[in-house]
Amino acid sequence: MTIEQPKDPLEVVFTCSGKAVGKMRNDLDVKMTEPMEESFTLATDEGPFHGGDASAPPPLALFIGGLTGCIMTQLRAFAKRMDVQIDDLNVDCKIVWQWTPKERIYETGPKSFDIDIFLESPNPLEDQIALIAAAKKGCFVEQTLGQVNKVRHKLRTPTGFVDVERMEG
Amino acid sequence: MTIEQPKDPLEVVFTCSGKAVGKMRNDLDVKMTEPMEESFTLATDEGPFHGGDASAPPPLALFIGGLTGCIMTQLRAFAKRMDVQIDDLNVDCKIVWQWTPKERIYETGPKSFDIDIFLESPNPLEDQIALIAAAKKGCFVEQTLGQVNKVRHKLRTPTGFVDVERMEG
Repeated sequence: MTIEQPKDPLEVVFTCSGKAVGKMRNDLDVKMTEPMEESFTLATDEGPFHGGDASAPPPLALFIGGLTGCIMTQLRAFAKRMDVQIDDLNVDCKIVWQWTPKERIYETGPKSFDIDIFLESPNPLEDQIALIAAAKKGCFVEQTLGQVNKVRHKLRTPTGFVDVERMEG
Repeated sequence: MTIEQPKDPLEVVFTCSGKAVGKMRNDLDVKMTEPMEESFTLATDEGPFHGGDASAPPPLALFIGGLTGCIMTQLRAFAKRMDVQIDDLNVDCKIVWQWTPKERIYETGPKSFDIDIFLESPNPLEDQIALIAAAKKGCFVEQTLGQVNKVRHKLRTPTGFVDVERMEG
């Protein structure tokens, strides 16, 4: 990390503008807007079994990639700060979701999240455990998974945005 | 969706094997293993401010892309099943995280998740709201964000895997 450690809490803000194209493809214009500006072009699609053209990875591939990349990044970033030497790092992540049919549609829910860490380091085991403990707290995605998050949805109508959660009752 | 609706609950399983390369880059080998097998190659990196080479999007870009793509996919998949016509669909997603310095490292936490939906449809508003309500329940990522998830970490040692959460405390 070459960024200066901030003295006060900062906000980190990401936005994503998605446009539905093709059968099931979504073109995604992703931006980091705070603490600095960067842009990234991504896309998702589905395989033929889900009515898509397989022109991009499915959303869950991006999701597990984001989780795995986040904890790996944090391990390397904090290793330098905590004086833990990393000679090599590999991480295996596995997520299991439940898919429950309900009449014509279905409902989903997560069942398990497992992360196996292969850390080559000459440091003693307690240093390695302390590094992982710190990385978990510094990993934006893991911290998000560990709490109940309220996702607010608004629907644009001809007379302005309506709050979906309020309309649902 | 051309897949048959399952009669019984199914598991949907994704795995990701990450290899740390370069300064902050992670090469990610992502697989769906259930209910069918597919493979995807992804990567994350960080910009120069975070000590990386900006050779791939950062993990949080994949994360917000996964969330946005997931709800968009669910809206289109369920629209067909719920007889809601979608002429055009755009979604703006915004996530704010807090970044709090703690001595030499830092801790993180999510602050807000906002999804603005631009749905062009001749169906009445109540049909559109019902579609969004169903899509939220069918969206694997939204359902994951809405509950407390336990992420289990294991560290490989010369004598086998150790449970990180048990070692911490």
